[in-house]
Amino acid sequence: MNIVVQKFGGTSVRNLECQRQVMQKVLRSHREGNKVIVVLSAMSGETNRLLALADEWSDTPDAAEVDSMVSTGEQVSCALFAMLLKKQGIHCRSVLGFQAPIRTDSAFGKARITDINTRHLLEMLEEYDILVMAGFQGADENNRITTLGRGGSDTSAVALAAAVDADVCEIYTDVPGVFTTDPNMCDDARKIERIAYDEMLEMASMGAKVLQIRSVEFAKKYNVTVHVRSTFSDELGTIVTQEDETMESVLVSGIAYDKDQAQITLVHVQDKPGVSAQIFSPLAEKKILVDMIVQNPSKDGKTDMTFTVPRADVEQTIKTLEALQYEIGFEKLTSNLNVSKISIIGVGMRNHSGVASLAFQALADENINILMISTSEIKVTCLIDDKYTELAVRTLHKAFHLEEAETIDQS
Amino acid sequence: MNIVVQKFGGTSVRNLECQRQVMQKVLRSHREGNKVIVVLSAMSGETNRLLALADEWSDTPDAAEVDSMVSTGEQVSCALFAMLLKKQGIHCRSVLGFQAPIRTDSAFGKARITDINTRHLLEMLEEYDILVMAGFQGADENNRITTLGRGGSDTSAVALAAAVDADVCEIYTDVPGVFTTDPNMCDDARKIERIAYDEMLEMASMGAKVLQIRSVEFAKKYNVTVHVRSTFSDELGTIVTQEDETMESVLVSGIAYDKDQAQITLVHVQDKPGVSAQIFSPLAEKKILVDMIVQNPSKDGKTDMTFTVPRADVEQTIKTLEALQYEIGFEKLTSNLNVSKISIIGVGMRNHSGVASLAFQALADENINILMISTSEIKVTCLIDDKYTELAVRTLHKAFHLEEAETIDQS
Repeated sequence: MNIVVQKFGGTSVRNLECQRQVMQKVLRSHREGNKVIVVLSAMSGETNRLLALADEWSDTPDAAEVDSMVSTGEQVSCALFAMLLKKQGIHCRSVLGFQAPIRTDSAFGKARITDINTRHLLEMLEEYDILVMAGFQGADENNRITTLGRGGSDTSAVALAAAVDADVCEIYTDVPGVFTTDPNMCDDARKIERIAYDEMLEMASMGAKVLQIRSVEFAKKYNVTVHVRSTFSDELGTIVTQEDETMESVLVSGIAYDKDQAQITLVHVQDKPGVSAQIFSPLAEKKILVDMIVQNPSKDGKTDMTFTVPRADVEQTIKTLEALQYEIGFEKLTSNLNVSKISIIGVGMRNHSGVASLAFQALADENINILMISTSEIKVTCLIDDKYTELAVRTLHKAFHLEEAETIDQS
Repeated sequence: MNIVVQKFGGTSVRNLECQRQVMQKVLRSHREGNKVIVVLSAMSGETNRLLALADEWSDTPDAAEVDSMVSTGEQVSCALFAMLLKKQGIHCRSVLGFQAPIRTDSAFGKARITDINTRHLLEMLEEYDILVMAGFQGADENNRITTLGRGGSDTSAVALAAAVDADVCEIYTDVPGVFTTDPNMCDDARKIERIAYDEMLEMASMGAKVLQIRSVEFAKKYNVTVHVRSTFSDELGTIVTQEDETMESVLVSGIAYDKDQAQITLVHVQDKPGVSAQIFSPLAEKKILVDMIVQNPSKDGKTDMTFTVPRADVEQTIKTLEALQYEIGFEKLTSNLNVSKISIIGVGMRNHSGVASLAFQALADENINILMISTSEIKVTCLIDDKYTELAVRTLHKAFHLEEAETIDQS
């Protein structure tokens, strides 16, 4: 049994006309001899409409009840799409999270999939030609409805593909695939044909919002081949898959950026054992996501501690730390909201040196000052003044010849 | 454990303000020391909105998918109401049909309840103070969502009350209770304090649309005391319960009418064995509900056969029978759409004669001609010209002194 999973987002199912377009893609895959699992989101706007209702009813709406309510979004879109297919004589049915079942933990609003009933899915695939499955939702062990958090339908699709060992998990979206960088920022941005899971993870977390990051983690864990492609054309998109030699021969795959960052510096921190924990534990408790961290070499028993947080959390970060000023022992706190994070990503870096220095040189040539640097195995990240974001992206894109499908000189 | 079931319809939960009013009734019952099962319908208008969507998508929408879709109506109203209660610090949760579970057959759109998991319900009632349960919906043995048909929430409420052996099943509606006749038609109409199941069945089927008829059958079968009362006041309503001596001492309980009737006559039917079956079987196959049937005494081997059908089915009735004219053997078919059915209902009739003749005399005194008569143990029905409907209702209401809480002279 050849099985293909196809996931369509809210924009693709928002009205009858759009659903008819989606149907053509589904029917084609069916005609090619595949059993198809279609994973749908709620019609666009619906989830927000329901969340607004919840907010009207309560300033602290119960998370379990919110999940039961917002899950109706996919319930409606799946039923409608199944009606459309049935009208074409297709033997199909809608399948909700609790019906599959897609078992999750009980973290309402951000549940994690714990188990999918493969046997039941395969039985249904024996009986039906197409299953129209609700993305984003599951049911906990008490059979209460849960949701996987925003963008969770991607994760549903990948998890289902893993459960039934699908040939491919196609994620249809409003862009043609994953690009070397944001095409709105750089005219030379090029669609990437194949990208490794790890690269995709770095791209996604950096704001290349094509695929939800958890779905990529899932795909990596279960080795699911994901094909990100456009709902509005038949063109091939980007294949997200295991790292292979071709990928490794490419030095840099893409340039990502994130303008939603702020830089915080604690000046003249008492450099004593445990001070990092004193600073970052209270922030973790407040669920503030600290990203880059740099500690300057100590001088006279004092050091400067610099890190970045999402801009929305700046105020709370300052409040939290200033309340602990005496305890932690720092002289003052400064913050800078006008910063931007630029990352150079590529699995090729693992085996090749010189990427960082090439990047630094390229930025220096344009007089872009680097405020912070952090590096990992497959990524180099620089924090810069945010007014240089576009220039930096274009400069680096060009420096690494990303406009061409470049391979490293193996000589 | 004292358990009370309270059912509220779509109008009562249509917005935040209405839900707050409903909450007061629920909280009061809770404060009185009861565990409360609240059964809710969809917010008014929602079910129709969803059905319209289904019609837009398909001219023959799949019934199972329609059920999955329209069931979201209660899913939303229950989640919202539970949020409201939680905000008051009440330990409660929403419970959907599949979660209870309320098991039904697979007749999508008009499913019948086959089983309710009493043990699970009682466990939930041990844990929670209030359960907010979705009316109108259940799940079949494959766990697919079903709905019980229009007004099915009344049936859900009564079935749940039966399952947990509730003290009472309160059905909140937009009228203060069951009346001796339609108050819009007769100023003297009086609210009935107690009414027997059988009387209520006759009243309901005759268009006194306070309670869904199936819910009354259910209540009778499982001996559930139903209290029909107003959402908008605290006044006591009508108790629907087992027949008792007080009820039997009342000659007539109410006058019902039905203007949605048409009279069909087959003139000069060949009076041979099996002719009734020849006439009515084809109509039954077309799901046409034949109500009153009168066969005149045969003369020269021919008879006239008269019966009533709902007005909407007249055309199909005529078409069906005219196609069989030769086979059945009748001379011609006549129809009359300007008829109305008036019924006098009361369990007291079982033991007292003279009700029919009193009714005929009262109508005769007003020069109202009776077109057809049919009688049962607790009901006398007359078909009359529909322009006399109001007059007939008022005349009969007065003739049986229904404006007073009358009891029969036992002397």
